[in-house]
Amino acid sequence: MTDSNFTNAQAWFQELRGKLINDIEKIENKKFIVTEWQHREEGGGKMSKVKGSIIEKGGVNVSTVAGKFEKNFSKNIIGTENDSSYKATGISVVLHPCSPYIPSMHFNTRYLETEKSWFGGGMDITPCLPFAEEKDYHVELKKMCAQHNENYYPKFKRWCDEYFYLPHRNEPRGIGGIFFDNLNNNNWNKDFDFIKDVGSFFNNYAMSIINKYKDKSWNNEEKEIQLKKRSRYAEFNLLHDRGTRFGLETGGNIDAILMSMPPQASWD
Amino acid sequence: MTDSNFTNAQAWFQELRGKLINDIEKIENKKFIVTEWQHREEGGGKMSKVKGSIIEKGGVNVSTVAGKFEKNFSKNIIGTENDSSYKATGISVVLHPCSPYIPSMHFNTRYLETEKSWFGGGMDITPCLPFAEEKDYHVELKKMCAQHNENYYPKFKRWCDEYFYLPHRNEPRGIGGIFFDNLNNNNWNKDFDFIKDVGSFFNNYAMSIINKYKDKSWNNEEKEIQLKKRSRYAEFNLLHDRGTRFGLETGGNIDAILMSMPPQASWD
Repeated sequence: MTDSNFTNAQAWFQELRGKLINDIEKIENKKFIVTEWQHREEGGGKMSKVKGSIIEKGGVNVSTVAGKFEKNFSKNIIGTENDSSYKATGISVVLHPCSPYIPSMHFNTRYLETEKSWFGGGMDITPCLPFAEEKDYHVELKKMCAQHNENYYPKFKRWCDEYFYLPHRNEPRGIGGIFFDNLNNNNWNKDFDFIKDVGSFFNNYAMSIINKYKDKSWNNEEKEIQLKKRSRYAEFNLLHDRGTRFGLETGGNIDAILMSMPPQASWD
Repeated sequence: MTDSNFTNAQAWFQELRGKLINDIEKIENKKFIVTEWQHREEGGGKMSKVKGSIIEKGGVNVSTVAGKFEKNFSKNIIGTENDSSYKATGISVVLHPCSPYIPSMHFNTRYLETEKSWFGGGMDITPCLPFAEEKDYHVELKKMCAQHNENYYPKFKRWCDEYFYLPHRNEPRGIGGIFFDNLNNNNWNKDFDFIKDVGSFFNNYAMSIINKYKDKSWNNEEKEIQLKKRSRYAEFNLLHDRGTRFGLETGGNIDAILMSMPPQASWD
């Protein structure tokens, strides 16, 4: 582990942030609103939000923070047995489109350093109407993963399905994708290549689906279905998402933590 | 403790249910949709929902159930040291009105029997716009409580303020009301009189506020404020409400548990 690894990861997350924001701003012909926030220990982040005519609510958040994990929390984190200090850098993105034909899309990748170091992250999507591209989506994601390791896709897909699940409704949040943590193959550059590919895949995939469906009109009934589906999204984030609960319980930036909440939801 | 106490409490909750539903049906000129559900152990409930032109989402739920508390749960419940059996009967009501001028209104009362017995419940309201009746509301509630016990209002108001609070936002859910549990003064009839008065107070209060504001028009901006306020309501219920979490974790009836969720909410 060298500091240049951390710096390189951080630089890539910032580059990807710029690329995503640029692509969405072109589609929307509208600028993101950027808010910088400070972490209570060290570092901070940059949250960018857009409310557009295609993306109803879009958020891109990058952060680079350092500190010490609280005891209760650090017991689940590798490399903190002797020293609970950590450094973390990451990017997270959520896009809730206006159109019920475009799935909500979520992505994040992060790099952590304790006495060990690893990557984590994933992407998943949540259509609310039958999604003709469902099969292709999984096939493409599998292909991308297989370029790095044949085992990644089956393992990370299952992990994703297990994580984004609402036990109280016996239903998945969406159609899944990939989810991984503690990724370290003792070959930093190889792992980093995978992380970069996950980010680029998300960027390209999101733009292609948005472009494909952005001009297709929808009716009120389809919008209602979307709002109802989003109530499940809200339930997942508030009831089950470990990141959300950890953030809220440890006094993180409330806007950044709840950036992923849907713009509107219906429990009607 | 005699069984007739339980039967009397149950009968009153059913009577109050009938009265509330009747009053709202008259205002709406529309019938509630009634669903009966079974408890996994013994008993069940009757959930009544209305989606009207004045009450955007209204729910009245009565239930009478029996069973044994799970060990983890019973340790917080009095009278279960030797035997974790319980009987419970109760009513819960939530009204989310269309108009941003009418607060969301919430009420419940319940009677429990373990080796001990007690009442619990309360009422609270959540305006989203400045609410001219705020002071009067608390004064009236205090007056009603004082007819039973001078200490009730200050104690139960504080309890309510502490319970319906969103720590992650440092803000209360609404303007409060009263909240109480383990109410047993060794005088069942006296306690029951209080419970009946809480129910009647809620019924009368809700109808008077609805009638006062039901014909006042509002604009989009005021509706937006309401939808945003409701996102806090949803956050409270999913993140903090003990009843909701307990219900979800123990596999209760999902519709009855989430009956209190707002019809629509905005995190825009």
